[in-house]
Amino acid sequence: MSFDRLIEKIKETKNPSVVGLDPKLDYVPEYIKNRCFEENGVNLESASKAILLFNKMIIDEIYDIVPAIKPQAAYYEMYGYSGVKALEETIKYAKSKGMFVITDGKRNDIGATMEAYTIAHLGKVSIGDVEFEPFGADALTVNGYLGTDGISPLLKECEKSDKGIFVLVKTSNPSSGELQDKLIDNVPVYSVMGDMCEEWGKNQIGKYNYSSVGAVVGATYPEQLSELRKRLPHTMFLVPGYGAQGGGAQGVAGAFDENGLGAIVNSSRAIICAYKKEGCDEKDFAKAARREALRMRDDICSYINLKG
Amino acid sequence: MSFDRLIEKIKETKNPSVVGLDPKLDYVPEYIKNRCFEENGVNLESASKAILLFNKMIIDEIYDIVPAIKPQAAYYEMYGYSGVKALEETIKYAKSKGMFVITDGKRNDIGATMEAYTIAHLGKVSIGDVEFEPFGADALTVNGYLGTDGISPLLKECEKSDKGIFVLVKTSNPSSGELQDKLIDNVPVYSVMGDMCEEWGKNQIGKYNYSSVGAVVGATYPEQLSELRKRLPHTMFLVPGYGAQGGGAQGVAGAFDENGLGAIVNSSRAIICAYKKEGCDEKDFAKAARREALRMRDDICSYINLKG
Repeated sequence: MSFDRLIEKIKETKNPSVVGLDPKLDYVPEYIKNRCFEENGVNLESASKAILLFNKMIIDEIYDIVPAIKPQAAYYEMYGYSGVKALEETIKYAKSKGMFVITDGKRNDIGATMEAYTIAHLGKVSIGDVEFEPFGADALTVNGYLGTDGISPLLKECEKSDKGIFVLVKTSNPSSGELQDKLIDNVPVYSVMGDMCEEWGKNQIGKYNYSSVGAVVGATYPEQLSELRKRLPHTMFLVPGYGAQGGGAQGVAGAFDENGLGAIVNSSRAIICAYKKEGCDEKDFAKAARREALRMRDDICSYINLKG
Repeated sequence: MSFDRLIEKIKETKNPSVVGLDPKLDYVPEYIKNRCFEENGVNLESASKAILLFNKMIIDEIYDIVPAIKPQAAYYEMYGYSGVKALEETIKYAKSKGMFVITDGKRNDIGATMEAYTIAHLGKVSIGDVEFEPFGADALTVNGYLGTDGISPLLKECEKSDKGIFVLVKTSNPSSGELQDKLIDNVPVYSVMGDMCEEWGKNQIGKYNYSSVGAVVGATYPEQLSELRKRLPHTMFLVPGYGAQGGGAQGVAGAFDENGLGAIVNSSRAIICAYKKEGCDEKDFAKAARREALRMRDDICSYINLKG
């Protein structure tokens, strides 16, 4: 019922970063793809198996130094239901290794339907007298455009089963300002959305002073990051846009509080494709991912005051 | 590259409505569930099979009188990947019967990731030299909070393969106004979003004067429906909230132009659970759905000027 579990994992690993598992097939080394295609042919199932294998090998190399993964649902849905199966299995595997899992689905809908998304991604579904956990992530990214009744079902689940959500506030992309920077009574839309996060989380604040309702704020807008950190004292930030999208460690430092807490910074491509940038043997891809994850940790930690 | 295909289907059936396939397991008649559970046990796979069977039997009864279905992704994700497989198969089945399929996923993300969602739901994915169609819907609902670069990949696909999108503008839920009704330079957020839809669609306008970029506008806000119809002359409306959520036919009439075009009204529960309201034998559920779909068609058409 707060982000305490995530924060403790961050303190334990002394690492406020999350590895985005966005495994486009182009990112997967040839030897893995070839093995899967030879076994089962060139099809959606084989592509999904290759992705799962790729993810597992990366997880094996990073679970002791990185607190969390963030699989992006789009890259799994792209391979149909078998891709979605790979998402399910990636989540289960990461959890079995003790990692905190944030499903990046940016889901949103009206109340009754949001209950179904809540069950799907964070909760359990009853079939007859039996309960099943469909995806079982620890947290989910969501879009708050529909207001409170599209968020309420999530809040109930956060309270019931110690889960969290990250609401899109100020996204990292170039055109995020088209709506998000517009002013409502002299306050930008992103701050209005941020204020809603504080309101939604106010009864679920944990021992580190952060609630179960976090916000997505892009590393590509460092000024807004610092401004929102001050404005939203109980809102944990998920910060995409570091690395490949251009955000630097100095800029993301503003997302953290004086204890080096309150934010977790995502990097996807720069980590899972580190072997391409390094130019090392593709069979070394997972170790290259570990090297980049360590470099990123040290880069960010050199600007903040995180204690274990 | 416009909504011409959908509009022609509406004219052919003389029916501007869409059946929402949101198949909670509670909605599925006992005899179907029991058959699936007896065959394969009580589990996510059996639940998904029951849902698929339920959908197919409804589609068989309505495909000649209803132009489109709108499966809501949440109700499939709730049953894990096997639920998502049922979504894929529902889409394929409805298309094989000539129906137009709108996947209600309200997807949204930054550009690079939105490409993956576009491929997943409307496009094709390349694996080696082979192309596969993961979900293959005709249209997708999306959330425009991230601005133009989160929409651009969809526009390209709409142009390339004659697909469409519906962007959330004014949603049907009670708290939609918390953000959507707020004023930006005296214009409500929903109108700002609506204006973006006109802009995004301006190069993809079809012979009925509507582009490939539609808007979701709730039947529960009839005043805003009429206001937006005037403001957005090239934007096709997907109108949820009729029936179970309280919107009436007189109110939704404002969503249509003088030719009875420009909108398609959704009903989910009222149709797929019609057998419960009627109190008929549960084995008659699909015929009850047809009866309610015909009643809804006649109800709406009595207020508009649709010609075949």
